[in-house]
Amino acid sequence: MALLTDFGLSDHYVGVVKGVIKGIAPLADILDLTHDVTPFDIVEGAFLLLRAAPYLPLGCAVVAVVDPGVATKRRPLAVATKKRVYLGPDNGLLYPAASSEGILAIHEITNPRFVLSLDGTFAGRDVFAPAAAHILKGVKLEDLGPARRAMKKLAWPSVRVGPGRIEGVVLHVDRFGNVVTNVDAATFDRWRSGRTKFRLLGLGFSGPVSLAHSYEEMKGLGLIVGSGGTLEVSSRRRAVDVPLKKGSSFVLSFT
Amino acid sequence: MALLTDFGLSDHYVGVVKGVIKGIAPLADILDLTHDVTPFDIVEGAFLLLRAAPYLPLGCAVVAVVDPGVATKRRPLAVATKKRVYLGPDNGLLYPAASSEGILAIHEITNPRFVLSLDGTFAGRDVFAPAAAHILKGVKLEDLGPARRAMKKLAWPSVRVGPGRIEGVVLHVDRFGNVVTNVDAATFDRWRSGRTKFRLLGLGFSGPVSLAHSYEEMKGLGLIVGSGGTLEVSSRRRAVDVPLKKGSSFVLSFT
Amino acid sequence: MALLTDFGLSDHYVGVVKGVIKGIAPLADILDLTHDVTPFDIVEGAFLLLRAAPYLPLGCAVVAVVDPGVATKRRPLAVATKKRVYLGPDNGLLYPAASSEGILAIHEITNPRFVLSLDGTFAGRDVFAPAAAHILKGVKLEDLGPARRAMKKLAWPSVRVGPGRIEGVVLHVDRFGNVVTNVDAATFDRWRSGRTKFRLLGLGFSGPVSLAHSYEEMKGLGLIVGSGGTLEVSSRRRAVDVPLKKGSSFVLSFT
Repeated sequence: MALLTDFGLSDHYVGVVKGVIKGIAPLADILDLTHDVTPFDIVEGAFLLLRAAPYLPLGCAVVAVVDPGVATKRRPLAVATKKRVYLGPDNGLLYPAASSEGILAIHEITNPRFVLSLDGTFAGRDVFAPAAAHILKGVKLEDLGPARRAMKKLAWPSVRVGPGRIEGVVLHVDRFGNVVTNVDAATFDRWRSGRTKFRLLGLGFSGPVSLAHSYEEMKGLGLIVGSGGTLEVSSRRRAVDVPLKKGSSFVLSFT
Repeated sequence: MALLTDFGLSDHYVGVVKGVIKGIAPLADILDLTHDVTPFDIVEGAFLLLRAAPYLPLGCAVVAVVDPGVATKRRPLAVATKKRVYLGPDNGLLYPAASSEGILAIHEITNPRFVLSLDGTFAGRDVFAPAAAHILKGVKLEDLGPARRAMKKLAWPSVRVGPGRIEGVVLHVDRFGNVVTNVDAATFDRWRSGRTKFRLLGLGFSGPVSLAHSYEEMKGLGLIVGSGGTLEVSSRRRAVDVPLKKGSSFVLSFT
Repeated sequence: MALLTDFGLSDHYVGVVKGVIKGIAPLADILDLTHDVTPFDIVEGAFLLLRAAPYLPLGCAVVAVVDPGVATKRRPLAVATKKRVYLGPDNGLLYPAASSEGILAIHEITNPRFVLSLDGTFAGRDVFAPAAAHILKGVKLEDLGPARRAMKKLAWPSVRVGPGRIEGVVLHVDRFGNVVTNVDAATFDRWRSGRTKFRLLGLGFSGPVSLAHSYEEMKGLGLIVGSGGTLEVSSRRRAVDVPLKKGSSFVLSFT
């Protein structure tokens, strides 16, 4: 089982989620993806989940909770894909990862038998943890509650490609200060046709940047295809010092 | 087994505690409650432990270490309750959680056979980790050292209820900025007799507040019964911006 | 298996490393030493690994990744010692811990069969995690790639001892603000010949300090032999407030 939340590690919240799981499924093996999603930031959580999911074991049950609408009418879901099972609120968080794997079934969690409570302000503890633990023990998704036809979607802007020009957006800035963009390697390679030098415009920067194969070879700001398969704007051994914020757009052009 | 400490996660301290446990009890399943208790803050640690304990599996051994008095004469304890076993320093940290479950036996850890060392400045590694690992392997509490009649107590101020007026204190401010108070739901419900609008006074704020059922429906500052069963002062999708510090007191009155 | 990285816990990087390990070796028991090594700080990582290693179970496979040279020609290594197996980049990170245990064999990881990829910017996920998981499943070091005669070394300055004078350097400042030095207890005890009062000079401080047996008994700045077996400069229940930075040197002299 894997967990991704915005609960942080300074409170007892993640611990009690795990305690509930272990109380139901003592042999559960729990893997933390991260608990430091910015509070309430569904988009960031969805991005990290999408990037992490392909590296989780097949059949893994994944509990993801970034849930500003907890205790409102947003539905708690269990979603089976061709590869894994996702549990979390129906607010878009699960959609990118689940849809990338091919969704097989969507169930709303309504059966009081497999949760601690359907009310309250801590669905991670009271709904998703126990439901996931019961899935580990053999409970079927259809036992958790009724099938639903659809779930809330969430998508990132697509890359805009023009002659000698490509426009992308920033999806994430990681711990090392790497600025992760939505420009996937295949699109980028088709567009650049072997070029390695470009002009970067926007995000408080305007100047030349080169494509590198390692962070170490960068002089100042550089471009690299990062470990998630998309273009990153990075800097050698330090965070980039231009204001490349999440959600910002930028343009690369031929020099 | 569960761990709660103020060791943080940036040093190797939590890792070596786990290494010691695994060296003695290789199959130990270790659950982290939190390691980010404010350094030396016994009261905060005791609060988080009390809130987390009910969600840990029955029979769980819980190692809790917030230990400013390490290497002094404060006693290292193993405490059996009707539900779990607690190991930690005798400084009040264990008391709220242990006493809430009914204490069956208190033993001082003195047997050198079940610790790495009884001296030194790292009892988490040298005393509590190995003692807990030995408990997992079947060692009895009475083998760890002599029984003690009492342990150091720790308690929070109680709620003061008057006609049209209730006075509480702040126990914790969580990652989301929710201000967790000592006003339990039952006391609050008896006092408010169906009312949902109040005046909050103190803590740098003076004004009307409403009782909500979800964070999402709050406009400005609001009241909610939180996941720990006590009243919280919260704000929609953001930390409350009034100085509601831990330990501060406040008054709610009828409007 | 144990992990030590500079990946932080706010991204999905540690989670995917664990996902890759579990995908290959589902029963792997993974212990986190720390993931909060300062980004790119090989020396800090090496220090924490050296201090933690003795407390890990014998036979433990340890993956350590602080890897500013990722995607360059620095070699990925698997190193067998008399006690454990270390996997990580050949940049000095592994050397202090591995050499302290007696190195038996050094192999470069080159066999594509036991990694996800030998290219790319995330060797923790693509090289070290899968190689370590295969070791858990019985793969031999010699199957990972060719033996190498040497690995990159890393060492700290040694203590300088003179009559009535000892000079050391700061290796680490921990979460509690304890300033961990390179002065080992045996050298210190020989030098001090029973004395407990000294003059500390350097690091922005000049004044008397006493040797304590517990943090609690300190008044102002004090000296204590810390849990890692070396001298620490500490202060009761608070971080030392003089600028004792990592790498700084200081002198203790008889009063």
